Amino acid sequence: MRIGIDVESGERSFEEYVKGSFDAVQFLPNIQLFLIGNSTKIKRKFPEIEEKQNILLINANDVITMTEEPIKALKKKDSTIVIGINLLKNKVIDAFISPGNTGAIVASSVLNLGMMEGIKRPSMATFFPRRHGGETLILDIGANPESSELSLYQNAILGLSYYKLIWNKLKPKIGLLNVGGESVKGNSTVKKAYNFLNKFENFIGNVEGYNVFDGSVDIIVCNGFTGNSILKLAEALKKFFTDTLKKSFYKTKKKSFFKRVMLGIFVLSGFYADLKRNLIEALLPKYYGAAPLLGVNGLVLIGHGSSNYLDLINAINLAEKLNRIKYLEILSSNIKKILKND
Amino acid sequence: MRIGIDVESGERSFEEYVKGSFDAVQFLPNIQLFLIGNSTKIKRKFPEIEEKQNILLINANDVITMTEEPIKALKKKDSTIVIGINLLKNKVIDAFISPGNTGAIVASSVLNLGMMEGIKRPSMATFFPRRHGGETLILDIGANPESSELSLYQNAILGLSYYKLIWNKLKPKIGLLNVGGESVKGNSTVKKAYNFLNKFENFIGNVEGYNVFDGSVDIIVCNGFTGNSILKLAEALKKFFTDTLKKSFYKTKKKSFFKRVMLGIFVLSGFYADLKRNLIEALLPKYYGAAPLLGVNGLVLIGHGSSNYLDLINAINLAEKLNRIKYLEILSSNIKKILKND
Repeated sequence: MRIGIDVESGERSFEEYVKGSFDAVQFLPNIQLFLIGNSTKIKRKFPEIEEKQNILLINANDVITMTEEPIKALKKKDSTIVIGINLLKNKVIDAFISPGNTGAIVASSVLNLGMMEGIKRPSMATFFPRRHGGETLILDIGANPESSELSLYQNAILGLSYYKLIWNKLKPKIGLLNVGGESVKGNSTVKKAYNFLNKFENFIGNVEGYNVFDGSVDIIVCNGFTGNSILKLAEALKKFFTDTLKKSFYKTKKKSFFKRVMLGIFVLSGFYADLKRNLIEALLPKYYGAAPLLGVNGLVLIGHGSSNYLDLINAINLAEKLNRIKYLEILSSNIKKILKND
Repeated sequence: MRIGIDVESGERSFEEYVKGSFDAVQFLPNIQLFLIGNSTKIKRKFPEIEEKQNILLINANDVITMTEEPIKALKKKDSTIVIGINLLKNKVIDAFISPGNTGAIVASSVLNLGMMEGIKRPSMATFFPRRHGGETLILDIGANPESSELSLYQNAILGLSYYKLIWNKLKPKIGLLNVGGESVKGNSTVKKAYNFLNKFENFIGNVEGYNVFDGSVDIIVCNGFTGNSILKLAEALKKFFTDTLKKSFYKTKKKSFFKRVMLGIFVLSGFYADLKRNLIEALLPKYYGAAPLLGVNGLVLIGHGSSNYLDLINAINLAEKLNRIKYLEILSSNIKKILKND
């Protein structure tokens, strides 16, 4: 499998992504990585790259920055994003991973790869952990910050198709994010979307933030603006929590000598490290380093601007997994089945 | 000070709110509570209520449920919400607290109490904790689930006025919640709002979920739909964290005999209880049990539908504090000052 990696559009240095690529090919011997960026610069920093059989360089002299307007930015024909999507379109690569300007990646994908049958706008989805196991899929998380009842309906179709593919669950429960559980709640867009979603037999109605972790719903449909905000807040809160946990160890209120000794033993014994690892694992939103752009005719994975070494490794793993389980074919076939029953 | 309490509209039994009221008057001897609900039922359950000098009963035979459409629901003239807002309008009470149908409380407040000069729609705000102290105000959290650039602008004015009142900070930093930091990001409403907010000298531009806890911004403006979702997710995630923390103690991966003994001592010594308390305190969104409905001519506090005993106590405390610091006068004077400089 051949995966194109945009090593220039993220907020981190290209070096981090090149190193991640070196390590990824170690444990995934069947993949070939195409690093899209300034080849001269990469070769100067990593002269050993020319000997790596599974890593190829694709030169791109330009970069679309985060501040550029998507449609205008696509005029940069020599940018990593435009080159990457074109390579995907021409089947030189099987997947494209970029931590760059989301709007530009979405626009380029829609225009060049086209949409799957029945879908007008793409969507991005991410899995959240749950209290009693399993995962809850939330979408859209930012592919489409404008929201209409039709885009919410399409998110539902894409969510159902993707959830079935990943979890192999025949009838995942689907809910509509709203400000209250009752059907009269919310703004006019959400009220209209409620009627569209009501067609699905596994639609459980409105859900709220409380339901994300409790297992009462498998797929939560929301607009891209709110989904993006929720995801970022959850990540920030997770970091805040683990930092606070650390701080709390060092400032319990009544700190007797006994407690101070206990604290020392607790940390030194490795118990604290275990605890922290368990917590982080349990709470990690299953972002997998990047989220697939659902609904376009091509395997495009979009990462955070701040994606790091580990995010890239995870994104490569996800691309390999999605390709292996025939993501494009099954997703598009699931969409057709849902629309047929609709 | 006289506070009206709607004991019927919440999801919990009236008994919980009556008990909360009994306890609140113990430590706030200067307040008088008007319990609005079915007086016969209350007296039957709490016969001792007739001897309590600081607690009075106001009979209401009807209740607006969570599923009713706000405007229609206001025809229930004998409902706790309609009676409560009328008592406030007629200055029988100085504040009204309700855990009921938010839309109905908002509509009744706007129609009967009227808006402060310069404000067209009210807003609800809540404080979030921060990593290094201080609090971040987020608004709207649900008073207005329809979003326009003008309502976002009004949220900014209300947020600045409220933050100054509570924190006495002359120039709090204000940010606009968006899907990215760059000014070109977001949907059309947010882009237009950016230009409105740009007039404030202390506007720092777009912010994201990441910024809520890092102290980079004091006031985060967002639409009521997203704000409500964020608040509920944060509360659910906090609960998930503390539950996971508990679970993690009992399933560290390599559990040697030594570690099991350690674990026992750790829990029994009270160290674990201390730790959990510290964590919960640090992470608690400062919802104060209920949020004031900013911008209306009256002190109205709206609580979660699921508000419990403790939430009511906190809401009564907040009402007493806001009344003491002359919330209505100062908020409305702050709004005028901001609009004058605008």
